[in-house]
Amino acid sequence: MTGFFKVKSLDEVLGMTQRFSPVGIEALHIRDAFSRVLATDLIAGENLPGFRRACMDGYAVSAASTFGASESGPAWLILKGAIGMGDIPDFELAPGEAARICTGGMLPAGADAVVMVEYTEAVDEQSIEVYRSVAPLQHVMDETEDFATGQTVIEKGRLMRPQEIGLAAGLGHTRIRAYQVPRVGIISTGDEVIPVDKIPDPGRVRDINSYSLSALVTQAGGEPVRYGIVKDDPKALKSICKKALAHTDMVLLSGGSSVGTRDYTVEVLSDLVDTEILVHGISVSPGKPTILAKSGHIPVWGLPGQVVSAMVVFQVVVTAFLHRLRGLSRPVAPVKTSARLSRNLASSQGRRDFVRVVLEEDNQGLVARPILGKSGLIRTMVQADGLLEIGEHVEGLEKSSIVDIILLK
Amino acid sequence: MTGFFKVKSLDEVLGMTQRFSPVGIEALHIRDAFSRVLATDLIAGENLPGFRRACMDGYAVSAASTFGASESGPAWLILKGAIGMGDIPDFELAPGEAARICTGGMLPAGADAVVMVEYTEAVDEQSIEVYRSVAPLQHVMDETEDFATGQTVIEKGRLMRPQEIGLAAGLGHTRIRAYQVPRVGIISTGDEVIPVDKIPDPGRVRDINSYSLSALVTQAGGEPVRYGIVKDDPKALKSICKKALAHTDMVLLSGGSSVGTRDYTVEVLSDLVDTEILVHGISVSPGKPTILAKSGHIPVWGLPGQVVSAMVVFQVVVTAFLHRLRGLSRPVAPVKTSARLSRNLASSQGRRDFVRVVLEEDNQGLVARPILGKSGLIRTMVQADGLLEIGEHVEGLEKSSIVDIILLK
Repeated sequence: MTGFFKVKSLDEVLGMTQRFSPVGIEALHIRDAFSRVLATDLIAGENLPGFRRACMDGYAVSAASTFGASESGPAWLILKGAIGMGDIPDFELAPGEAARICTGGMLPAGADAVVMVEYTEAVDEQSIEVYRSVAPLQHVMDETEDFATGQTVIEKGRLMRPQEIGLAAGLGHTRIRAYQVPRVGIISTGDEVIPVDKIPDPGRVRDINSYSLSALVTQAGGEPVRYGIVKDDPKALKSICKKALAHTDMVLLSGGSSVGTRDYTVEVLSDLVDTEILVHGISVSPGKPTILAKSGHIPVWGLPGQVVSAMVVFQVVVTAFLHRLRGLSRPVAPVKTSARLSRNLASSQGRRDFVRVVLEEDNQGLVARPILGKSGLIRTMVQADGLLEIGEHVEGLEKSSIVDIILLK
Repeated sequence: MTGFFKVKSLDEVLGMTQRFSPVGIEALHIRDAFSRVLATDLIAGENLPGFRRACMDGYAVSAASTFGASESGPAWLILKGAIGMGDIPDFELAPGEAARICTGGMLPAGADAVVMVEYTEAVDEQSIEVYRSVAPLQHVMDETEDFATGQTVIEKGRLMRPQEIGLAAGLGHTRIRAYQVPRVGIISTGDEVIPVDKIPDPGRVRDINSYSLSALVTQAGGEPVRYGIVKDDPKALKSICKKALAHTDMVLLSGGSSVGTRDYTVEVLSDLVDTEILVHGISVSPGKPTILAKSGHIPVWGLPGQVVSAMVVFQVVVTAFLHRLRGLSRPVAPVKTSARLSRNLASSQGRRDFVRVVLEEDNQGLVARPILGKSGLIRTMVQADGLLEIGEHVEGLEKSSIVDIILLK
């Protein structure tokens, strides 16, 4: 039980993401690309929509033919034909002419706007009256209005959300180049930890962390690889670390939260080839006894064994590094919501506190109610809807102050 | 081109989720249970942690032995032994005795608290001094402090987040009963729509909606099943609808945004066995021409063909129905953040507007900048970080007012 921590601030640790690099690249079909990160700029190979397209049901016209039209003085237009969906019109419009068109249809040459059907009346089979003028390009999408050939439409490093997938589809990019899904090795340590399918004797507990951390990895866009439980034995720990380092892109050890174990975790990590200890303690609560090492190009974490501490550190620290490995160019900020604090809350200066809260709705909006309970109690995380962050320089928060809550989804 | 819509409000439509039922139930291993919905209450079969456990490194004691201890008047305690991780202590503590213990260790009989190592000093091999008193149960988790045998620990209908997975693991529930993942059939309609791997002639466009909607379904916890593109032909549409209804739990048609096509979509749906049209138009913008039918127990949607409209309706309407099918007992509200509006914004009363916005950070916090652009432009969704909702009874919003933004993740 020796040594003091050289504790780092949360911001110092988050600044270290740039010391790691994104994982490799692969090609994949856009149907499998949701939530992946683009590895090369996506360039428009053609115009989108690629032709002048109606946005409303009505009549294609030359806008000039409608100028000055009103209820009392409608414009009278000759009906030149009707345009079917997907058809290339086989006629042109002259001034004073119109053609029936539906939303999505292609305007004929000579037309630059659409008059909504609501503002027209059929006079007879061959002509219509228009009661409102339209401006050029009104109710149409022009040929390059979404994108023009050669434009960068999605930048490298962007997350493929449903709309980015749709855009890639629209431009015919059926295959894209994306970063691989980072593989994250998960190792639980501790003589007292037993597999989840065993019944614990008194003094022993099941391996919660392997499962909660695996789900967190999946949620953050990684692929968990479970290496099971290792006893509090430096040799066994070293051997399993080497195995995980050979097959994954990031390694999470959890457990070893007692001072003695922490020390040997640091020793084991220091003893690995080409490995540097970057962090030995972070000024956050819960989660202070967190270790980060860089082994070759791989981040290796020693997370606290306490179930809540391990989850909180994952959410507020590890996720940023996983996002970096995924190739995301902009760090994805945790999703926050505002709420009113239900009570006074004390805090220690010099560290960032993350307090579990329940969110409740009252007639004035969302209320955040702190959950008090030890960081070994998984119950407190199951009750929690979010985490309230209290800054290093804040002594405490007053009842009814408006606070930002990191949502736990 | 006949008929007026009997337009319903968004709240009326959302109130219809209860007309549908969750899908079937299956058993699965907790390693596969992330983001699934629990189908039966999870009951604690044992106590958690199951024994009196240390939360700190230090000494197990009877709290009473430390009462009155201070820097100037420390308590002197006899060291009875040390407790290894996972061990059942083979001795009891009498008043005036202490035992070395690490975080997570089991307290011996007779001990009800832990003194942190920081507040002790070793006198010799057999005794320590304690400089601070502890209260009973301080720095320990009691046997049932997380959960007691027989307690409901997670209720039916709850989402399995990482913490719920961890809790199930901790209680040895390696298999749980969860609702199946709803299968969602996706059909694009329109004579102008071509497959994404084809090069469109003028007048034609690639099938964006099948891909953006598939990704939205995945994001909302469903499994997309693509049925491809069907021409604007009632017979073909009816045939593919029947096929989708036989194999999925919800069906999304998109396209048919022109009035004529809309009418035949309604006709085709009405013509299916045991099918009722529930909604024919919703007072939202974009997305007004949305249809909802109930065919047997299956919701069938006619979404607008415009790419943005289809995505917005999915986000603000369809998602709630998919959550219902997934078995979620509490509707999951869209994730919102507060921001300052960058400009004045007009709106029409009597309908709910959803305006795409970019979120930018300035020195006063988040700013929401509306994106202007037609609802046929996928670009506007790719630029968007969120949707600004403007209520039915609001005429417009003023520059710098604080608004809630639905995040598009």
